[in-house]
Amino acid sequence: MKAEDLQERIDQEIKLAKHIGIVVESADDTTVVLRAPLAPNGNHKGTAFGGSLYSVAMLSGWAWLTRFLEMRNISADAVIQESNMQFLVPVHGELLARMRTPAEADVKKFKRMLERAGRGRIRLTVEMQTEGTLAALFEGVFAAALRR
Amino acid sequence: MKAEDLQERIDQEIKLAKHIGIVVESADDTTVVLRAPLAPNGNHKGTAFGGSLYSVAMLSGWAWLTRFLEMRNISADAVIQESNMQFLVPVHGELLARMRTPAEADVKKFKRMLERAGRGRIRLTVEMQTEGTLAALFEGVFAAALRR
Repeated sequence: MKAEDLQERIDQEIKLAKHIGIVVESADDTTVVLRAPLAPNGNHKGTAFGGSLYSVAMLSGWAWLTRFLEMRNISADAVIQESNMQFLVPVHGELLARMRTPAEADVKKFKRMLERAGRGRIRLTVEMQTEGTLAALFEGVFAAALRR
Repeated sequence: MKAEDLQERIDQEIKLAKHIGIVVESADDTTVVLRAPLAPNGNHKGTAFGGSLYSVAMLSGWAWLTRFLEMRNISADAVIQESNMQFLVPVHGELLARMRTPAEADVKKFKRMLERAGRGRIRLTVEMQTEGTLAALFEGVFAAALRR
């Protein structure tokens, strides 16, 4: 599943993604990087709206998990269950989200839960950078359940 | 500051609000209630996108604090610092966010911090309901700093 396929998937499945201007920069087993321009996501101070930052960060995790399932022919939908987000410094430019590569043990555990119980959960962390500085940190618990 | 004024403020300050379709249902010292239609915020499963739910919930807290400052002629911008959100059940209809009335002691403490130190922080909780059930719970720490 290439970046273009993941882009198509996001655009088809989430209506607001077009308005946010989500662009899949890269996608592989280790990470997903998403970008969005400031213009449609700005506030009156010329910085990024928190809801947009959250959406881009959350979608990085969702996209990684969606791709992970797709690549292994696992028929399951990824959903967000819980999340924590810290806003450290304002973002004055492009919104840039990069998922941290999850620990191999966590990925294995998730896959095992999904195989054995038909549902699994995994915690994913996403960093948002602005001009080389960590601007926001997202941590989300995502769940997937096998379609029957 | 009436609901219409708060609506105007949101629409002017946050570009994405129009695309989400944020409607200020009510606004007073005790709470702010915001609504948004499902259509622009849906995913392929016909439920609300997590980023939209987050945006509506977060804006309820932001709008309450913005109104609180405005009504008291306090020249300060409200910003989100940290948030936690739990997604309990999928939302199949309108997105509806109602801020829980903060404890009087917390509001007093926030105001005192702002007066004494020029900056204050307050934790606000927002409930999202769907068909009478709690669908999502947002907790955010908002900060305000006096403009100099």
